[in-house]
Amino acid sequence: MSSQKDHKLCMIPGPVEFHEDVLTSLSTPATSHVSPSFIPIFGESIELLRKVFLTEKGQPFVVSGSGTLGWDMVSSNLVEPDEDALVLNTGYFGDSFSECLGVYGAKVTQVKADIGDRTTIQEVSDALSSKSFKIITITHVDTSTGVLADVKGIAEVVKKQSPNTLIVVDGVCSAGCEELRFDEWGIDVVLTASQKALGVPPGLSILVASERAIQVFKNRKAPIPSYYASWAHWLPIMNAYESRKGMYFATPPVQLIYALNTSLKQITSIPLETRFEQHKKASNIIKDTVDSLGLKFVPKTREVAANGMTAVYYPEGIQPADLLQKVASHNVVIAGGLHRAIATKYFRIGHMGISVTEPERKHLDTVISALTSSLKELGYSGK
Amino acid sequence: MSSQKDHKLCMIPGPVEFHEDVLTSLSTPATSHVSPSFIPIFGESIELLRKVFLTEKGQPFVVSGSGTLGWDMVSSNLVEPDEDALVLNTGYFGDSFSECLGVYGAKVTQVKADIGDRTTIQEVSDALSSKSFKIITITHVDTSTGVLADVKGIAEVVKKQSPNTLIVVDGVCSAGCEELRFDEWGIDVVLTASQKALGVPPGLSILVASERAIQVFKNRKAPIPSYYASWAHWLPIMNAYESRKGMYFATPPVQLIYALNTSLKQITSIPLETRFEQHKKASNIIKDTVDSLGLKFVPKTREVAANGMTAVYYPEGIQPADLLQKVASHNVVIAGGLHRAIATKYFRIGHMGISVTEPERKHLDTVISALTSSLKELGYSGK
Repeated sequence: MSSQKDHKLCMIPGPVEFHEDVLTSLSTPATSHVSPSFIPIFGESIELLRKVFLTEKGQPFVVSGSGTLGWDMVSSNLVEPDEDALVLNTGYFGDSFSECLGVYGAKVTQVKADIGDRTTIQEVSDALSSKSFKIITITHVDTSTGVLADVKGIAEVVKKQSPNTLIVVDGVCSAGCEELRFDEWGIDVVLTASQKALGVPPGLSILVASERAIQVFKNRKAPIPSYYASWAHWLPIMNAYESRKGMYFATPPVQLIYALNTSLKQITSIPLETRFEQHKKASNIIKDTVDSLGLKFVPKTREVAANGMTAVYYPEGIQPADLLQKVASHNVVIAGGLHRAIATKYFRIGHMGISVTEPERKHLDTVISALTSSLKELGYSGK
Repeated sequence: MSSQKDHKLCMIPGPVEFHEDVLTSLSTPATSHVSPSFIPIFGESIELLRKVFLTEKGQPFVVSGSGTLGWDMVSSNLVEPDEDALVLNTGYFGDSFSECLGVYGAKVTQVKADIGDRTTIQEVSDALSSKSFKIITITHVDTSTGVLADVKGIAEVVKKQSPNTLIVVDGVCSAGCEELRFDEWGIDVVLTASQKALGVPPGLSILVASERAIQVFKNRKAPIPSYYASWAHWLPIMNAYESRKGMYFATPPVQLIYALNTSLKQITSIPLETRFEQHKKASNIIKDTVDSLGLKFVPKTREVAANGMTAVYYPEGIQPADLLQKVASHNVVIAGGLHRAIATKYFRIGHMGISVTEPERKHLDTVISALTSSLKELGYSGK
């Protein structure tokens, strides 16, 4: 663990801390994207993603881009102009996904939860009764609020009440740390990014689509209104690499895919169940500390709070910049607020990936200690 | 130069060999995308890009994605539905850019050069007479054929005959190795990727837009038909980072931008003129060797041939896979063909970046030696 350059411990809700072996893979020297050394790395990464997402036949896509690009892939491949989309909005990312869907011609209906709360099953059921939706989108964890959606419960009601509606999960801040069972829960799409619980530097848009979603894509009538995000280009590439053949549409980010491969091997080396439990336990450690400091969470209850991050209101009298800078002076980086309505009123701590799964690194202790000391140094005396 | 892992020398037309310092920057540990350490790195990279593209006021964009995404940015931000686009097609990449423009509603007129040839100024002039084009696109170097377009000459005739037409250069295989003068030649857009002559691993879509192009974007009437590629999202981000402020649309690929920063500093440490000359000289060394071996180039003459790569027909009796594998057995990687009509008939050698600018690495000697020996071992006796 001594091979990384000195740096402040990065405890934000992504990018997270990266394993030394992941960074070493990232610095793989120049390699052709169709070389016999790279092709199996890409192919195996596609296979490993199925394990991480707990799916037998889901189709992974690994594309150069940020997580945001996943919204374009969903909106341009699965929704045709004037089709209805239901967006469960629990913060910043629900707003943005809605905007993206609208750009590609979807008619968007939003169910907005209060800040810190999540959509109830009843609200989903009511919305589903109102019209026939092509897709429903769920932000599993809204990184802006740290609210955790009940994906399993929502999927159940959708299956029962509107079985043709495609279930799309924005798993940017959940895949790899929150319980997420693609096949068992009947999910059609999970989209995510590399830099959160998958433990790889930012630059990969990662998505898994069900066989049903791929069929919907293949049967669509309207032309696909995007070039770069079109699965018509990417599906043959994923199929080729998985069958250990090179094929060209756009040059894949070779080094990031080497890093992804290393991280996915680490992640799948223990049961996913264990990983989910580790993140729940770590989350409780952080949240118990926040509680004991007398601070207030953005999510209304523990039940609706994410396990990979914690969003906390500043105590009265503490200025945002002061706390973040004070924590940084202890060599730890935490994040400010992002939700537009309360951006200056809260901060966020990330606890995902190796910071959780390798307790010998003592990352949780370090962030707890930095936070506690910083508050004290700023004159906050607790509850 | 000893810090890279052993690997076969990568002499394809991208990805190219990467400098050790670039790979070290790439493996920067976890860093927040809005941290005080990263913001100036991103901001400075934007400034340095202007120097590389020889522009005072062009607006750089650095976006997570492959070079292909640049076509989406041009097609979705600068062209409105049913506007006319003129594509000068010298190979595979002209076909693809045309398809991309079409996806976003442009009416595309193509001027196709014969394989190995480039569009003449007269052909451009004739095409411009036929109708009023919103944009003209030029593939500066078509990586599939190694043909070099006369961007300067074309820009002149456009300025004279159709001054309102935006001049868009696909510089994926030219930016950083071919003479390309953004301001002096009056270019409106150059789009490129990180993994060619800019010497950075793949994963960055890089684009520079003129003030005029930005105005056209700002004045467009039709909504922008893309979410991820929309400059409405990216322009504020580029402006924020350049003024040394963090701002969020999508998580930038922090590690790749550290690598970009390092490479751009290296590139701008000597005059661009010198860099252009170095690439011309290196190209002549490779092409003289190919000539002396009695092999035939894909480009019809040296004048229409790129300086950063060389495309060569296999001699009779030599099978594609045999030559590539034989060269690989000498620890050098060269590329097969890509142009659909002749894909199995030719190979490609890249000579860009540090393989050219740092002759002490002896990369040119190494590829020449591997090629010459391989041909001999396969029984080719020369002319």
